Amino acid sequence: MNLTNRSQLRRLSDRGSHEEADLYRILDAAFLAHVGFVADGQPFVIPTLFGREGNTLYLHGSAASRMMRELETGIAVCVTVTLVDGLVLARSAFHHSMNYRSVVAFGTARKLAGDSDKNHALKVISDHLIRGRWEDVRPPAPKELKGTTVLAMEIEEASAKVRTGGPKDDAEDYALPVWPGVLPLRTVAQAPEPDGEQACEVPGYIVNFGCC
Amino acid sequence: MNLTNRSQLRRLSDRGSHEEADLYRILDAAFLAHVGFVADGQPFVIPTLFGREGNTLYLHGSAASRMMRELETGIAVCVTVTLVDGLVLARSAFHHSMNYRSVVAFGTARKLAGDSDKNHALKVISDHLIRGRWEDVRPPAPKELKGTTVLAMEIEEASAKVRTGGPKDDAEDYALPVWPGVLPLRTVAQAPEPDGEQACEVPGYIVNFGCC
Repeated sequence: MNLTNRSQLRRLSDRGSHEEADLYRILDAAFLAHVGFVADGQPFVIPTLFGREGNTLYLHGSAASRMMRELETGIAVCVTVTLVDGLVLARSAFHHSMNYRSVVAFGTARKLAGDSDKNHALKVISDHLIRGRWEDVRPPAPKELKGTTVLAMEIEEASAKVRTGGPKDDAEDYALPVWPGVLPLRTVAQAPEPDGEQACEVPGYIVNFGCC
Repeated sequence: MNLTNRSQLRRLSDRGSHEEADLYRILDAAFLAHVGFVADGQPFVIPTLFGREGNTLYLHGSAASRMMRELETGIAVCVTVTLVDGLVLARSAFHHSMNYRSVVAFGTARKLAGDSDKNHALKVISDHLIRGRWEDVRPPAPKELKGTTVLAMEIEEASAKVRTGGPKDDAEDYALPVWPGVLPLRTVAQAPEPDGEQACEVPGYIVNFGCC
């Protein structure tokens, strides 16, 4: 992976990495990306699901969506993924922080043309979100595929940032009578809510979602 | 709030709103924003904490950070906030969706100059994240304020999108033998992890974080 100015870590670079294994581990732990692009000089940031296969990110959306129509022209894209792990509550306002894992990835997207490529990419996105679901459901019909734009973006360069651990306070603040520490945060699944009166058993991939 | 092409909702506009009350409710339920800006033609999307006061969003960061140095020049900014509420598991791959609340807000940032304005904005950000904390901790020292850039962005225009409820399947798919429904997701706090051997009681604003 090449590195240019855009992905070089300038600050707190001890928290950073450009290693593929680190990037991919964070990308694979998340399912939501925030996609940045420029249209008429205006930056847009749009949340969307994504999938990863090797060094390729897949995005999809309605063929009518502004984001898809802009991205398919091959403009520069920034895909950012952030996982918040906790609030870092220091003894001073200044040293408050967040434990997190994030990836900022740059590239350009290309539109997939054939139904077989599109189907494959959609399966990658589905598996990335909830592995096992794709095999259970009705696959996309030709008309549905036609109405869906699927984009592939090679990660040209990217950086990861990770913060872990407790607060780092100034020496003279350690005696202050304030509770210091980390409030861990996790995204957890609640009880599944069935639609209608289907009597099917809840599949294991739903019951165990996010527990790995 | 004015509306131009950039914030008009094109698709699924029944899920959308431009009402301030809707925008502010979503912004206030979140603490993480993804900030988009353009530097040298390249879009960047960076995760960061934020605060809201009226129609103003506050951002802060090290005076040395690229984002702060770019944004303080008054370039166009997009601030996006997304809350994921659940996975919508339909009977067909095509109708899978996500329950979410998001805001996409546009504006330009200005750098706050005086210590009093900066302190106030930092308190708004702190209160937005965890109300009650600011009063407990050592306030920013002059040197710390000097090293921190604080930006205010009036929301010039914005759109909210919300999806709730179960899957909307095609009529002929309702009989398929697959579990359909919603897997609700929530970000929840785990047990606080104290730093060091402080014996202070855990404050109520930490114990009850996110429970309101």
